[in-house]
Amino acid sequence: MHEINCSWKGDMAFGSSINGHEIIIDADEDFGGKDKGPRPKPLLLLSLAGCSGMDVVSILKKMREPLSWFNIRVKGELTQEHPKTYSDITIVYEFKSSDGLKDDNVKKAIELSMERYCGVSALLKKAVNLKHEIVYL
Amino acid sequence: MHEINCSWKGDMAFGSSINGHEIIIDADEDFGGKDKGPRPKPLLLLSLAGCSGMDVVSILKKMREPLSWFNIRVKGELTQEHPKTYSDITIVYEFKSSDGLKDDNVKKAIELSMERYCGVSALLKKAVNLKHEIVYL
Repeated sequence: MHEINCSWKGDMAFGSSINGHEIIIDADEDFGGKDKGPRPKPLLLLSLAGCSGMDVVSILKKMREPLSWFNIRVKGELTQEHPKTYSDITIVYEFKSSDGLKDDNVKKAIELSMERYCGVSALLKKAVNLKHEIVYL
Repeated sequence: MHEINCSWKGDMAFGSSINGHEIIIDADEDFGGKDKGPRPKPLLLLSLAGCSGMDVVSILKKMREPLSWFNIRVKGELTQEHPKTYSDITIVYEFKSSDGLKDDNVKKAIELSMERYCGVSALLKKAVNLKHEIVYL
């Protein structure tokens, strides 16, 4: 069981301590906030990126792949109708081609995360169209 | 469309800038991290708390309810099997009884959030058993 606490800080701001680390979330000024922190919805995309990213780093390390750089972009497409929510989410895993990673191992690490290890992916794919791409820069 | 970027910072740490605010996420030491930031999975619970919390504050303000204090706890029950993900999520909305809020208005504000406005709730209830409670302290 995980539990978080989120306390109202006035206007649209809320503060939370997660694993001992403080996070402030806030709306922007058009919605009565003061932009003291990020909006709540994109945190869901970060939760996914972090959960899968940690899997991929850990698996590639076990495979002894020489990772020097790794970046993840997550795109969430919003519904037209209210409530505005993500209908489609795409994770783009970006690597450096100069690292000389074996493409088969990269694909396998990402598949293991998406199919077996990543709890956030397992949850989100019940609710949205979840896709992924691999890009070498 | 929302897009976030999440860049690997070595070991299990990742950094992201969301709406211009920096967030570091990290694993704990048992999983090869250095606890530089929160774990990714509870961020999903914070995303829900913030999204619905902002609705509730905004609706209660329109109802001219005298809110002086408001706290949200979110409990996520993890599956036994892998991947460990949330099977049940409960949001506990906490108010001060000394604020003299009209209970009907509080219930209505929360129902409007859960049923009509909160995009994160709309998404999560497709994937988990999502419940809520109201508590006056």
